[in-house]
Amino acid sequence: MARILYELTGADQSRPFSPHCWKAVLSLAHKGLDFDRSPVPFTSVPQVEDSFSKIVPILRDGDRIVADSFDIAHYLDEAYPDRPSLFGGESGAALARFIEAWTTTQIHTVLGGHLLLDIHAMLAPQDQDYFRTSRETRFGRPLEEVVKASAEHVKSFSARLEPLRLMLKRQPFIGGEGPLFADYIVFGAFQWARVCTDEQLLEPDDPVADWFDRCLDLHGGVGRSIVSAA
Amino acid sequence: MARILYELTGADQSRPFSPHCWKAVLSLAHKGLDFDRSPVPFTSVPQVEDSFSKIVPILRDGDRIVADSFDIAHYLDEAYPDRPSLFGGESGAALARFIEAWTTTQIHTVLGGHLLLDIHAMLAPQDQDYFRTSRETRFGRPLEEVVKASAEHVKSFSARLEPLRLMLKRQPFIGGEGPLFADYIVFGAFQWARVCTDEQLLEPDDPVADWFDRCLDLHGGVGRSIVSAA
Repeated sequence: MARILYELTGADQSRPFSPHCWKAVLSLAHKGLDFDRSPVPFTSVPQVEDSFSKIVPILRDGDRIVADSFDIAHYLDEAYPDRPSLFGGESGAALARFIEAWTTTQIHTVLGGHLLLDIHAMLAPQDQDYFRTSRETRFGRPLEEVVKASAEHVKSFSARLEPLRLMLKRQPFIGGEGPLFADYIVFGAFQWARVCTDEQLLEPDDPVADWFDRCLDLHGGVGRSIVSAA
Repeated sequence: MARILYELTGADQSRPFSPHCWKAVLSLAHKGLDFDRSPVPFTSVPQVEDSFSKIVPILRDGDRIVADSFDIAHYLDEAYPDRPSLFGGESGAALARFIEAWTTTQIHTVLGGHLLLDIHAMLAPQDQDYFRTSRETRFGRPLEEVVKASAEHVKSFSARLEPLRLMLKRQPFIGGEGPLFADYIVFGAFQWARVCTDEQLLEPDDPVADWFDRCLDLHGGVGRSIVSAA
C-alpha cells in the first residue's frame, strides 16, 4: 500500500525546505517506515489528495490521509505502536506542545521574516507571485522591508536558544538519551535555515550546533542528505 | 513513618517562598501523600538531616532522604507508581528538563535579581547577613544595584512568557488536560513572586494568570493557602 509524504519544494524539487514537512520526514524515519516523498510547490498544495488540506505536510498511508506534522506524529504513534514512539505517551505529547509553542514564538518568528527572500529566490515564478502576495498581505509590507526589520531579531537569535543550551548540559536530546518528536519540532526550524540560507546562525562551538549535527545524523542521515546552502 | 518536607522560610515561618520547595509541595500534593512541612531558614539548611544536602527542598520519607525538587519528583513517581504520575513516564521526564531550563533562563533570571530585596526583607537578621553576602558575591555588586539593573529584564517579562501563552490556547496545563510536574516547575516561579512581592507581574486578563490561578486551586488550594503579598 502506498505511503506518500507530500512536502513543499521550490523550483529545485531536490531541496525541500519546509520546517513542518521536515518534522514529518524525521517522524516517518524515526518509525522506520518506508515512504515516497512527493514534492509540491506552493500553488499546488490546495490540489493535493482532492483538496484534503490547505497545508503540507500531508501523509497518505494506504487509505488514511493526515495533514499537519503534529497530527501526523500522533497518527504514526497510534497506527504503529510497536515501533519507536515519537511522544512516549500522552504526557510526552502534551509537553511537546510547549516545545512547539517555544519553537513557534522564539525561532519561527525570527526565521519566518529573515528567510523570506531566500525562500522567494528558491521558488518557480508562479509560486513566487503567490508567495510574495500572500506574505506581503500577512506582514503588511514588502518582503524586502520585513527582512530588513528582522535584523534586530536575528541579533537576539542566539540568546533565544538559552533554554535548549542549558538543557543540553544535562541530556543529548530534548527526548532525553534519544530523540523524540519534540527534537524534530526544533530540528525542522534549523533545517529550514540550513536549506534556505548560507548564513551561519549558530557558532560552530555552540552546544545547539552539536545537537543539530546529531539530529542531521539520525536515521541514516536523512536530514544531512540535502546539501547545506552554506 | 514520618514524611517531612524541609523547606526554606524567612522570619515568618508561615510564608515559605522558595520556588524549588513549592515544586516539591505541589508534587507531594499531586501524589495525594500526607506530609509535614518543616521550615528551615537559610543558615540552617546545611544542618538538615545530618548535612544531607546544601540545598532544600529535602524530603525525608521514612528511611529515604532525597534532595532537589526534580529528584524528589522522580523518587515519588518510582516509590508511588499507583498514584497519579508526575511525569507520565521517561519521555515526560526528559521533556520536563526543557521546561526546567526554560523556566531557569526565562523566568528565574528575571525574578532572581528582581526579588532580592523583597526576599532580604523577609529574612531573620542572621539570614539577612548570609543572604546579602552570598548573593553579592554571586552577582558581584550590592543587592540594590542588582535590583535596579533588573528593571530592564522585568520589562521583557511578559514577552518571555509567549511560549506558555501560545500553548495555553491549546490546552489548560503544560501537562495537557491536567497538571504534571512540568506545570509545578513554572508554578514555583510565579508562586515565589506571589509570596515575595505585591508587584503585579501579570495582567489580570493574561492567559498565564488564568493558568496560575488554576494551579493555585489544585490539590485543595495548597498554593493559595499562603496569602499573596499583594
